[in-house]
Amino acid sequence: MLKPTTVALDAMGGDNAPGEMILGAIEATSLKKELQVLLVGQEELLKKELSLHNYDSERIHIVNATEVIETAEPPVNAIRRKKDSSMVVGMKLVKEGKADAFVSAGSSGAILVGGQIIVGRIKGVDRAPMAPLIPTEKGFSLLVDSGANVDARSSHLVQFAKMGSIYMEHVMGRKNPTVGIVNVGAEEEKGNALVKETFPLLKESKNINFIGSVEAREIPYGGADVVVCEGFTGNVILKLYEGVGGVLIKKIKGSLMTSLKTKIGALLIKGALKDTMKDFDATQYGGAPLLGLNGLVVKTHGNAKAAEVKNTLLQCITFNEQQIAQKIKQSILEEEKENEEK
Amino acid sequence: MLKPTTVALDAMGGDNAPGEMILGAIEATSLKKELQVLLVGQEELLKKELSLHNYDSERIHIVNATEVIETAEPPVNAIRRKKDSSMVVGMKLVKEGKADAFVSAGSSGAILVGGQIIVGRIKGVDRAPMAPLIPTEKGFSLLVDSGANVDARSSHLVQFAKMGSIYMEHVMGRKNPTVGIVNVGAEEEKGNALVKETFPLLKESKNINFIGSVEAREIPYGGADVVVCEGFTGNVILKLYEGVGGVLIKKIKGSLMTSLKTKIGALLIKGALKDTMKDFDATQYGGAPLLGLNGLVVKTHGNAKAAEVKNTLLQCITFNEQQIAQKIKQSILEEEKENEEK
Repeated sequence: MLKPTTVALDAMGGDNAPGEMILGAIEATSLKKELQVLLVGQEELLKKELSLHNYDSERIHIVNATEVIETAEPPVNAIRRKKDSSMVVGMKLVKEGKADAFVSAGSSGAILVGGQIIVGRIKGVDRAPMAPLIPTEKGFSLLVDSGANVDARSSHLVQFAKMGSIYMEHVMGRKNPTVGIVNVGAEEEKGNALVKETFPLLKESKNINFIGSVEAREIPYGGADVVVCEGFTGNVILKLYEGVGGVLIKKIKGSLMTSLKTKIGALLIKGALKDTMKDFDATQYGGAPLLGLNGLVVKTHGNAKAAEVKNTLLQCITFNEQQIAQKIKQSILEEEKENEEK
Repeated sequence: MLKPTTVALDAMGGDNAPGEMILGAIEATSLKKELQVLLVGQEELLKKELSLHNYDSERIHIVNATEVIETAEPPVNAIRRKKDSSMVVGMKLVKEGKADAFVSAGSSGAILVGGQIIVGRIKGVDRAPMAPLIPTEKGFSLLVDSGANVDARSSHLVQFAKMGSIYMEHVMGRKNPTVGIVNVGAEEEKGNALVKETFPLLKESKNINFIGSVEAREIPYGGADVVVCEGFTGNVILKLYEGVGGVLIKKIKGSLMTSLKTKIGALLIKGALKDTMKDFDATQYGGAPLLGLNGLVVKTHGNAKAAEVKNTLLQCITFNEQQIAQKIKQSILEEEKENEEK
């Protein structure tokens, strides 16, 4: 029998809440019988919205939370003060073992803070990185950290590499994933102080398939399965991906409107172009997990619609079934043992 | 009368040397009468190559240099040992005032080291950043630093902002250019330690049009005219631009080959697509100057062809006519005065 997975979904977070959150939950539960969703938010509002749809009332439940954390609020204050917010209530469900995962399209800052304060880090994990999948020529890579720790140290990056490898192998099914550290050149002697310090540590790390430096140019070609960097660089990578892709498509579309000839051409290639764009769109992969917590916390895009919410909920099933938190705990214990032996 | 500009061109550096270097020099001198080019490299080889073309022998001369610095050589060693290399000889021409600028498509590392050791920094300039133009939706922005200083400090970034503004205004003709610091969010309190330290310094800097943080997503849309960051982040930005663009085009081209319909469409839009790609290709803007030296040193792409070499040589004329080094000196003096007054 399949192990059931219960996900607490922040029904109030993001630009399209609660409508698209609820739709995503309905779609996901209709696809996977082992999934149960707890919609966390203002009960009356959610009841009304749910009543508009057909859904399995055995597997979608409402958990009341009267407050909402806004994107602009200072994260630490918001998490401390709004005890009855959908985010705090949802994360507490994970903390108390009533849910296996928490998913939100709300404020990134509040998710980071809440994840660490409420759900808590696995003992031995020093920093919890955000790890989204990014599209590549070959399919996708895991970027870790995409912005949770902008001033990380070398020992943190080593843990990012290990946790990222576990996630990529067991949740995404990439066997023995390659690990590369983002660098300004291919050679070991290249890099800033942090990379130079981290490189030898990654080289001697057991249980990861470290292939050395990966230059930013190589990332979109799939230069490494797990792309390791501190959160500042990771955030630049994630957002520049979006920016360059967006402008390029805009420019191409504009160029197709310049003459009758190109307009006819545009009609003929419209579908193919759209598919390619979809292929290179990060949102198709669902959310980004915060790795290294005592439970799963996943951030989806602020503008996520039902399809992305659904994908994120389904991803939680694999995470839960594969007992990723357990595997990370195990890896951290081994690391400590390695260090003691030295 | 126009002030004549003499450029020492490394005829031996880059993938396409000396052929494309020489062609670029011939094209540039035929366009601008005030330009003189000193081709630095192995005399016999260059003589032979030059003899194949028509050119103005009054304005293209050969300066003999018997050695060549290879891309793989450790830069410091190469510059110290190969005293008769095209790079060392060419930079000495700038140092001795026999040339106004040095242009090379050779090893970036050697250009950085040689620029600082041989040409030397302007007194008061702590670090010389590499500052290429990058394509944006609106046209182009200046990225400073794209990789020369991977562990820069806040005071360095402030100088990068000032030197970049001067270059953008006086060489590229962008009046009162906006300056943004690369950051993970728009708010002042966001950022890593370096950015948080630099932000207030930029805010109180005179003579720059600081507009605050620029997220990587906004860079391709032209979010700031002068994009300031340390060299590690800058290198990631420059190379990721290239990588994302490259993969996206490859994917689009591939998608157009999937059916007869899209193949016909592809024929109709081919020209427009090509123009867009050219528009978004960094090489059209010529080379990246090292700012803050006692003379101009410019790095062009390793795979530069005649057109890029020509553009780079023409850029040197404006740099020289506008007396950028003088303007930077002036700005540094003002900065020192400001600091004394505090």
